[in-house]
Amino acid sequence: MAPKTNSGIVDRSNLIPFSSRLKEGKALAQDVWSIFAAANLPADCINLGQGYMNFAPPEWVTKAAEEALHSVAPNHYSHPRGRIRLREAIKSFYGPQLNRDLDVESEILVTSGANEGQYSVFTAFLEQGDEVIMFEPFFDQYLPSVTFNGGKPVYVPLHPPTDSKIKSSSNEWTLDIAELRRAITPRTKMIIVNTPHNPVGKVFTKQELEAIASLAEEFNLLVMADEVYDCLVFDGKEHVRIANLPGMWDRTVTVGSAGKAFAATGWRIGWLIGPASIIQPTLAASTRIVFCSNSPLQEAAATGLEQAKERKFFENQLSEYAERRKVLCDAFDEIGLKYTLPEGSYFVLLDISEVKFPEDYPFPKSVLGRGRDFRACWFIAVELGVSSIPVSEFYCDEHANIGEAYARFAFCKDVDTLKKAVERLRRLKEYM
Amino acid sequence: MAPKTNSGIVDRSNLIPFSSRLKEGKALAQDVWSIFAAANLPADCINLGQGYMNFAPPEWVTKAAEEALHSVAPNHYSHPRGRIRLREAIKSFYGPQLNRDLDVESEILVTSGANEGQYSVFTAFLEQGDEVIMFEPFFDQYLPSVTFNGGKPVYVPLHPPTDSKIKSSSNEWTLDIAELRRAITPRTKMIIVNTPHNPVGKVFTKQELEAIASLAEEFNLLVMADEVYDCLVFDGKEHVRIANLPGMWDRTVTVGSAGKAFAATGWRIGWLIGPASIIQPTLAASTRIVFCSNSPLQEAAATGLEQAKERKFFENQLSEYAERRKVLCDAFDEIGLKYTLPEGSYFVLLDISEVKFPEDYPFPKSVLGRGRDFRACWFIAVELGVSSIPVSEFYCDEHANIGEAYARFAFCKDVDTLKKAVERLRRLKEYM
Repeated sequence: MAPKTNSGIVDRSNLIPFSSRLKEGKALAQDVWSIFAAANLPADCINLGQGYMNFAPPEWVTKAAEEALHSVAPNHYSHPRGRIRLREAIKSFYGPQLNRDLDVESEILVTSGANEGQYSVFTAFLEQGDEVIMFEPFFDQYLPSVTFNGGKPVYVPLHPPTDSKIKSSSNEWTLDIAELRRAITPRTKMIIVNTPHNPVGKVFTKQELEAIASLAEEFNLLVMADEVYDCLVFDGKEHVRIANLPGMWDRTVTVGSAGKAFAATGWRIGWLIGPASIIQPTLAASTRIVFCSNSPLQEAAATGLEQAKERKFFENQLSEYAERRKVLCDAFDEIGLKYTLPEGSYFVLLDISEVKFPEDYPFPKSVLGRGRDFRACWFIAVELGVSSIPVSEFYCDEHANIGEAYARFAFCKDVDTLKKAVERLRRLKEYM
Repeated sequence: MAPKTNSGIVDRSNLIPFSSRLKEGKALAQDVWSIFAAANLPADCINLGQGYMNFAPPEWVTKAAEEALHSVAPNHYSHPRGRIRLREAIKSFYGPQLNRDLDVESEILVTSGANEGQYSVFTAFLEQGDEVIMFEPFFDQYLPSVTFNGGKPVYVPLHPPTDSKIKSSSNEWTLDIAELRRAITPRTKMIIVNTPHNPVGKVFTKQELEAIASLAEEFNLLVMADEVYDCLVFDGKEHVRIANLPGMWDRTVTVGSAGKAFAATGWRIGWLIGPASIIQPTLAASTRIVFCSNSPLQEAAATGLEQAKERKFFENQLSEYAERRKVLCDAFDEIGLKYTLPEGSYFVLLDISEVKFPEDYPFPKSVLGRGRDFRACWFIAVELGVSSIPVSEFYCDEHANIGEAYARFAFCKDVDTLKKAVERLRRLKEYM
């Protein structure tokens, strides 16, 4: 028998070794999603951990998938660029927002979820040793996606609010532009700008984006604008697209997601929009990685974008999410734990540094080697019955201590579920 | 404006250069599928080129996808390993064929099509400079999938039948084991064994696989058994799985495809089966590349595998494909052009070296720089109205001349369509 490593991965060093690229980053560490998977937690635990909905996609979108299933062509290979109907729908929907007459043949690429799209950009552009700047906390997939493609992640922190008030806004998480400038080296190739931001909920302001854009121009950097939560910006706040800033179109690829837009995270349909100089090499990568994306759900996503406007779908969906956000945040106000009110996305960061739990609690091995937030989230999930995600996972090892103060709660759940969760979370008062 | 290369990819060398990995292999060359895409050919051309069906998946399988769409969970993220129901179905279906009680947690991985599964194996196992042996002609995606992950393809040809009879069997395409041994170096990491073989249709014999297995053991190599056409083996010929040979389980990953099995090439659901030592690192790769595969169609594929036996689905489907094969091959017999009768898959290789066409025919630029087979296939598509795929695409540049003798015709089309195609192909006699 080959020996097992801590991560459960068999070390085949005596047989055929796996690639050294799996040894970089956190690729082999048990990921937070597996540790806090529903199967590991009490059966009646309410899941506010992983960011998927506990409701179905809209029926009028699902119906389009069914129609596709009853046809012939939409059950077979799509063009690697994506089905033309979906590309046309993306052009019509995003063109006005980007102030461009998008070319469906060279400026739009449908991908197997936003995740694969981002991975393909890294494959298409990274040279061994190229540096990619990401703002901490960062969506955890970025790290191994960069290292698998030979890149080196470079971290620039968003600085958390430092005052002691209960409610902060996500815009109080701030970027130090001088710090960003210092992080740029001759090997820097790309900056990832995630707005609205997961997990902070921050919607970057025009001023912040202009400062980033200015550095991107000065140092000739590519910008990956991960805007998968673009339909979830609250309180009339403006969602600025960095691709729209002067001179930025040529160096920016904007990432979108049908899963986030239409409550269908398992459909694995996303898209990239950008200049041909970015989309064409990315197509060459994506064509080899997945060949093409699933066809029936592309047809459904096309219907979603085609009809969203006349149905006022995104406006209505936003109101529903605003209500969900309110249920959760009102409770945090009442409990008196510090939290960040998100301007966008469906996540709330709760400061759990004052939540007390017995250090001799029977924690599983998987959380014991990790930050304090892993233990706090585990304790809250098991004792109170509401799961969340520890935020140190979204920091590099060196800065994980910043994230240890926070738990991420997802409110992409129906109001009744959130109300039940909130009832349970009130018991946090007993542990403060 | 940045200058354009021949392939239509903009050279951003004056801006942000794309990765050098795109310059290796054939990644940037216009691929054969784009050149021979229906959109480039006369509207009434019958498409026997790309290998997708002109019929829908079985209704009882599609119905399961619809049911999934009407639920909640099957519209959201699946576990990166795949939905448990599909993994259980794979275990029940393949376990007996592999003589193993498969572990659904560590020996099965659902992927976003067989293609992404194979890509993930390369990501998980290749070190910069590792060599991967493939038999020519090879499925064209292997090459860039290997080079994108730092690997180096090494080619060992299958030798075509040399006699002058009209009908050869695909088993007359032979592997020279001494040649395979000579191709192995200290950097060899993997051999790809594609059986039934695309495009030859060869079903490797037990003796051939034993010889390959013996070399894999001697040199400690990993074997990727691409068996996506395993449900299409004709005339009672035995489909031997190399994973079943003594000692081979530990070093073999077997690749399967719902698209090929259930006439749903656009569903992008495939799977890998192998020991934990191969599946676990591949899961680490796949989780970062696509995160997970689409959920509703996983449910459908699960239903397909669950009910296939009692419905005698694969037996019936095989009879239908045997009839399709007969329509095409009978015509080639009558025309008198040499061809290879496939023992498996849905492809027939036609020897087009004696098909004459005017060299001053108005060929598009895209086929002019390529092998004679590109021109012959173009001529047949435009003049006779039946498209096929030039086989030099499935050879490395050095050996492309072997492939130039052949066109690949796909018979995954309904009988009426094939009969119409055959009527048109009879006119080949005028060009011999």
